[in-house]
Order: sequence, then C-alpha cells, then structure tokens
Amino acid sequence: MSKQELPVVSADGAGPGTAERCCPTLLAAPLDEDQAAELAPVFKALGDPVRLRLLSMIASRAGGEVCVCDLTPAFALSQPTISHHLKLLRQAGLIAAERRGTWVHYRLLPAATDRLAAVLTRPAPDPAATS
Amino acid sequence: MSKQELPVVSADGAGPGTAERCCPTLLAAPLDEDQAAELAPVFKALGDPVRLRLLSMIASRAGGEVCVCDLTPAFALSQPTISHHLKLLRQAGLIAAERRGTWVHYRLLPAATDRLAAVLTRPAPDPAATS
Repeated sequence: MSKQELPVVSADGAGPGTAERCCPTLLAAPLDEDQAAELAPVFKALGDPVRLRLLSMIASRAGGEVCVCDLTPAFALSQPTISHHLKLLRQAGLIAAERRGTWVHYRLLPAATDRLAAVLTRPAPDPAATS
Repeated sequence: MSKQELPVVSADGAGPGTAERCCPTLLAAPLDEDQAAELAPVFKALGDPVRLRLLSMIASRAGGEVCVCDLTPAFALSQPTISHHLKLLRQAGLIAAERRGTWVHYRLLPAATDRLAAVLTRPAPDPAATS
C-alpha cells in the first residue's frame, strides 16, 4: 500500500535527522535542483483546502489514527474523491494508510511535517557573524 | 503592484501574532474551511521546484533583496516564465516586489513563511494532560 509513496521521509515517519541531512531551511541558502524537486510535491500536496483539512483531521486525532469512515462525513464530497485526496497525501509521504477489515485507517507521518516546518524556519543567527 | 496579493500576511511582512490569531498548527485541531481556503494557495505556490528555488534565492540573499536580473541567469527558462513564477509567489503573499529603474527587486515577506512553519509545527504538550 505504501509502494507509491515518495522516499521523502523514513517509513516509520520518525527518522532522526531528516531535516539536518537535507536543506535545514530554504531561508538560509538557495535550494539546489534536487532539493527543490524533492520538496515541491510535498508542498503541492498541501496546496488544496480539502487535503489540508483531511491532514489536520488525521494529525489532530487523539490516538493518532482515523478511519476513512470518520473523515468522509465532514465533506460534501464523494467517497472516491476523498480517497483520491488521501492517496495524494499518502504519495507525498505525509500520511500512512492501513486497511483493517472493511476500512482504511490513516495516520500522520510526523517526520514529513517536521521537515517542512524546518525548511520554512528562519535560520539561527550565525555566531561567526557576531564575533 | 501589490494589489493582487492575498491578505495572508500584513503588508510589511512582519505583523506580530499572525500565527497566533489563526491556526497555530494544523496538527493540533482540524482546520475549518476558511482557514484551509486561506492556507492552501500559499502551499500551492510552494508546490513547484522553480518557485521553491526562486523563494530560497530571495530569502537567503544577504541584504534581503534580489534584482530579477540576478535570478533569471540561474534558470534555463525565459524571463517571462521566471516573472510568472515570481508573480505567483507575490500573489501568495510570500514575497514583495519593488520596481527601481529598469529592474524589479524582490524580498521575502518572512511573516508568511513564519506562519506556514507555525502551522506545520507540532503543538506543545498540553500541561493539563499530565497533571
């Protein structure tokens, strides 16, 4: 089920040092082409109000997991449309999905949002610049 | 020149408390429709590798400002294409533009990236939950 996910984050969603390995912040130095090509699809996945709402519903759920059956009623959209948006979030590495019985359950992969937050955070002042 | 900018951030790009007024983090509570509709275009503007590279070139420039004439040579793209991408970043409230003589100069509006970083940051643990 996760075969289509981009290798943006570790599979467990908690890989240490992801942000440090690549592009600590786009505010500190120009991104190279590879970094930009890797980050852009994740931001693009967030560039839709339905997907943002779905992600926030999944991320903020106590217990960390949401059944798709609890997501669909919040939207005036068909189940296939919701599933399509969830697939795009999953392909961007932002959420993971697990089928249990009839329903698919979704959970946040926090390493992905952590990485985006780090990319958008202003760099700490350079100590060398003040010495 | 800034008439098309969405009112996502204050005009000076440093409005205090923007993140606090609205959606401290999408990881803490479900976004409502208005919040999602306001945030999605900003993420969408970042969902393109050329725009991400342009934004990082502008944001990381010492002095805080970049002439479009210094941005274009970094890309194998036409000047109109680069200008189109810059316009989308400007409309999303991520950068400001100022024409001086022949050239347009761009600078980051840091309140916009600050806000996105805040939206993607995990909430602090609720003190009430541990007492």
